[in-house]
Amino acid sequence: MDEARSKLETQPLGWWVRSHGCNDLTLEHDDREVCLMGWVQYRRDHGGLIFIDLRDRDGLTQVVFTPDVSAQALEDAHALRSEYVLAVKGVVRRRPEDMINPNLYTGDIEVAVREFKLLNRSRTPPFLIEDRAEAAENLRLKHRYLDLRRPAVAGNLRLRSQVVHEIRNFLHSSGFTEVETPVLTRSTPEGARDFLVPSRLSQGHFYALPQSPQLFKQLLMCAGMDRYYQVVKCFRDEDLRADRQPEFTQVDMEMSFVEEEGVMSESENMIARLFKEVLDVELETPFQRLDYSRAIADYGLDRPDVRFDLTLKDVTDVVRGSGFNLFARAELVKALRVPGGAELSRREIDEYTDFVGIYGAKGLAWIKIKEDEWQSPIAKFLSREECSGLTEALGLEAGDIVFFQAASPEVVNNSLGYLRLKLGERFGLIPRDTFAPIWIMDFPLLEWDGEEKRWMARHHPFTSPKDGHMDLLEKEPGQALARAYDMVINGQEVGGGSIRLHTREDQERMFKALGMDLEESRNKFGFLLQALDYGAPPHGGIAFGLDRLVMLMAGCSSIRDVIAFPKTQKASCLMTEAPAAVSNRQLRELGIRLREAEKKPEE
Amino acid sequence: MDEARSKLETQPLGWWVRSHGCNDLTLEHDDREVCLMGWVQYRRDHGGLIFIDLRDRDGLTQVVFTPDVSAQALEDAHALRSEYVLAVKGVVRRRPEDMINPNLYTGDIEVAVREFKLLNRSRTPPFLIEDRAEAAENLRLKHRYLDLRRPAVAGNLRLRSQVVHEIRNFLHSSGFTEVETPVLTRSTPEGARDFLVPSRLSQGHFYALPQSPQLFKQLLMCAGMDRYYQVVKCFRDEDLRADRQPEFTQVDMEMSFVEEEGVMSESENMIARLFKEVLDVELETPFQRLDYSRAIADYGLDRPDVRFDLTLKDVTDVVRGSGFNLFARAELVKALRVPGGAELSRREIDEYTDFVGIYGAKGLAWIKIKEDEWQSPIAKFLSREECSGLTEALGLEAGDIVFFQAASPEVVNNSLGYLRLKLGERFGLIPRDTFAPIWIMDFPLLEWDGEEKRWMARHHPFTSPKDGHMDLLEKEPGQALARAYDMVINGQEVGGGSIRLHTREDQERMFKALGMDLEESRNKFGFLLQALDYGAPPHGGIAFGLDRLVMLMAGCSSIRDVIAFPKTQKASCLMTEAPAAVSNRQLRELGIRLREAEKKPEE
Repeated sequence: MDEARSKLETQPLGWWVRSHGCNDLTLEHDDREVCLMGWVQYRRDHGGLIFIDLRDRDGLTQVVFTPDVSAQALEDAHALRSEYVLAVKGVVRRRPEDMINPNLYTGDIEVAVREFKLLNRSRTPPFLIEDRAEAAENLRLKHRYLDLRRPAVAGNLRLRSQVVHEIRNFLHSSGFTEVETPVLTRSTPEGARDFLVPSRLSQGHFYALPQSPQLFKQLLMCAGMDRYYQVVKCFRDEDLRADRQPEFTQVDMEMSFVEEEGVMSESENMIARLFKEVLDVELETPFQRLDYSRAIADYGLDRPDVRFDLTLKDVTDVVRGSGFNLFARAELVKALRVPGGAELSRREIDEYTDFVGIYGAKGLAWIKIKEDEWQSPIAKFLSREECSGLTEALGLEAGDIVFFQAASPEVVNNSLGYLRLKLGERFGLIPRDTFAPIWIMDFPLLEWDGEEKRWMARHHPFTSPKDGHMDLLEKEPGQALARAYDMVINGQEVGGGSIRLHTREDQERMFKALGMDLEESRNKFGFLLQALDYGAPPHGGIAFGLDRLVMLMAGCSSIRDVIAFPKTQKASCLMTEAPAAVSNRQLRELGIRLREAEKKPEE
Repeated sequence: MDEARSKLETQPLGWWVRSHGCNDLTLEHDDREVCLMGWVQYRRDHGGLIFIDLRDRDGLTQVVFTPDVSAQALEDAHALRSEYVLAVKGVVRRRPEDMINPNLYTGDIEVAVREFKLLNRSRTPPFLIEDRAEAAENLRLKHRYLDLRRPAVAGNLRLRSQVVHEIRNFLHSSGFTEVETPVLTRSTPEGARDFLVPSRLSQGHFYALPQSPQLFKQLLMCAGMDRYYQVVKCFRDEDLRADRQPEFTQVDMEMSFVEEEGVMSESENMIARLFKEVLDVELETPFQRLDYSRAIADYGLDRPDVRFDLTLKDVTDVVRGSGFNLFARAELVKALRVPGGAELSRREIDEYTDFVGIYGAKGLAWIKIKEDEWQSPIAKFLSREECSGLTEALGLEAGDIVFFQAASPEVVNNSLGYLRLKLGERFGLIPRDTFAPIWIMDFPLLEWDGEEKRWMARHHPFTSPKDGHMDLLEKEPGQALARAYDMVINGQEVGGGSIRLHTREDQERMFKALGMDLEESRNKFGFLLQALDYGAPPHGGIAFGLDRLVMLMAGCSSIRDVIAFPKTQKASCLMTEAPAAVSNRQLRELGIRLREAEKKPEE
């Protein structure tokens, strides 16, 4: 401990009260007595004076310790270090001309300190409290309370707070009632993996944390609640991808006496107002609408980024008789033409070939269209007819590159769909600061699960088929379309919902189509079936992924940047070290034991 | 199925859109074409017409099927039953004079139906959908979706939504940032019993559901968030009393750079505004303040109902030398004088004697003061001096009754404290529709735990002692007072909080006082101690129990009346039957097994 430090004692706040934040003072406050509190961002000693940039959540103010205002304060200030916590009283004054900082809201003034209190000391932080600081993420997460001091991260959380506030205000003024649904619920089959909570009072039984309040919000409609919303934590025990968290937040809504139009127009009005209020961005309503089948055909993905034009073309028929065996035999062949793409290097093309491998593609065929020839490893396999067929179908011009994928529809669409996004970036086709919202509709109701050998609900088993598609459940389940809708912005799915089945008869037919017999469906969903029996109104709803929405609005690339205390991909919290061992007494009380003897809990 | 029913098919909503709710139409809308949707509350057949009271969440509208408007609709209407769901189109018209209902907002009009759709049928509900219906609570909870259709219960949920909305608006406009803290957290010792969640990715380890976001909100202050709030679910795995739920909702707040005054004034402004906006009740600020010791002395309880005056009096010294052995030897003797109480019957007094038994009292001494004598089983033991001493100390007058309790302070204060509330009811001393908020302050910091044989934090181990009381931690722990404050309204604790310890040194001294050595405290709370080491600001906060607050505002007697899907005292949900058995596969994935072999899960 150095000498100066040892001299300066921390003090209680006492009756000192902040008069302003650190981003409030300008020349308007010249000569005003103020009291500021915050952290030492920088200290500079210059010409016998000490300058400190005092930081709070709102910004910075320069405070200056000078002998003519207080020799004592100046002497004490020698003990101050980065991240020490101060309360200062002093007078606002104009900075000398050469010290004015036009980049700072408070850059015209400084506060000359008459008196100050040291409220707390700080050890030297393990990384700089600055946006430009590039510490390893794990270190930042371990000391999240320091990471959150950085203006950018703190700003994300404040943006999130504002987003939620605007959403709530909109919904409240639209007649929605906020209702809290239980967190300790019953494990529901037909979804992802549940987090379980052992019951102590009813040993051998378990609660489950909700994957969504789906059934509860439908029951609220049965209860006549009419319009419900909730900003609610949901839970899925899945192996985490980079952009997933085991707990996430949904803006959950449900409405009675509506069809698709009712839910969609309320939703897009909400999103449009949100973007206007928070980002001052105008989104035109109604949003564009696109069939699922069209989205897959043109963009390869069911959440297309429609900010740029590049579309996929089905050329299966054009190359049907090709001498290139792969093309001739494939179930589906699609092409992606990139104007100006002929400039791509071999190295770049190799990278894209590796990239599409992630989506199961075994390779990536390509042709560069030059003035006088087609450069391509596969050109030699293509007949003159095929070449002119492709030229016509794709509108090829000199300078283009065309990528081809020939495989199963899933591989073709995924690999070219994601390649399209990468090429959009590479060629600067994606306009910045633009938001392109779109509804995707007419999804298939069911999809075949090859492992379980049965039809599964694509959305969830409570989704209604389109008018007239109910009978397809028994005849051609794969052909039934759902009354479902997803909202996609810039290629991110931000929300999704559906009109629900609201009669017991239809719900039981759906369960049957999913391979449940009557007994099984009554065991698993008896309370829902009962509720539908007592005058359930027609209803539908939607849920928005708040984390993803905020991430999009904040322009962040990781979902962890918009969550105060996120977990790692191993679902652990590096700061608190959760999950952790618990005592044997705790396990005993819950009537459970660990499966592997060697994994003994701490006593 | 009767014949009429079989003829009328349910139909989809199609393009029908509601024009009004069922509580909107008055004579202003005379002759207007409208479309209403809702449930059949009552059907009356009268004079060849059919009248239906159509109900939605907002109210009732009478719709009438008449042959002159639509013979077809009238014929179809014969199939309608209670709780069937309808959409009707028709014309608003004035009711005949003799059918006007002045008790109904829509009582001047009816809607003559041109056309209607049956949207869904209903079985006969197991209880009437009316406020006056008195079904058993278990039946109501099993069919909660029907119970919630009753206007009173639905009204509670809407009141709750409004309460939360007002609170959020207040806090948002006061510069608070809403931050979501994790639900999957680490089990913290020093609290109630945790709900645990086994981790699949890290087998043998467990998350805990938060009992409160206490540590996270303090970490947010360390992070410079300055003002935080959250309306957040909290969890305690305790044996449930009548007014407890395993999950409950807190309005959680924390502020930096404040002392008691800052938190308390912000809190009482919030509560005052809430009562004004929601109930149109004016609460005078600042709220009255009372020391904990004074509260116990006068009211016996640390959450006194100060709506009425009756206070306890310590008469230990007056009866010190009494011939009545119990009085002479007791650690504490207190009296409760009730003016006019001499009218109580023996039966009533016997009931009160049983009642105080709940709080450990072995009996209940009493004296009725008559004009000419004292009626009492104990009068004969009291000397003339004692009698005049009591008369003087208690200001006794003819017509009074005095109750005495002589025992340990805990038994004396609890038994007379709760008896006071009962007598307040009995004698009509408690004004209706009055709210008397009060702050209780200067709580003891620690209390001795006879079982664990150590000092425990009364509030929690992060609470700061009062200025100058830090040194008492080592010297006289029982004498240290806390910088804590509870808000009590009408005898209900609605909120509580404290100024926190914000330096590592002080926090470590506190842990030591609680019997933790340095290693233990670092194991359990290392991340907090580290955070305090990096410039934690002075901070404090408060948490309000939302369920209790809404219950108070709604005038309900059970917390289950203000929760959409409450659990029973066995912590189970009668509707979904949670908690429930889970599959062995689920348990295997989590690396746990049930302790008792006979309690096999379902496969």
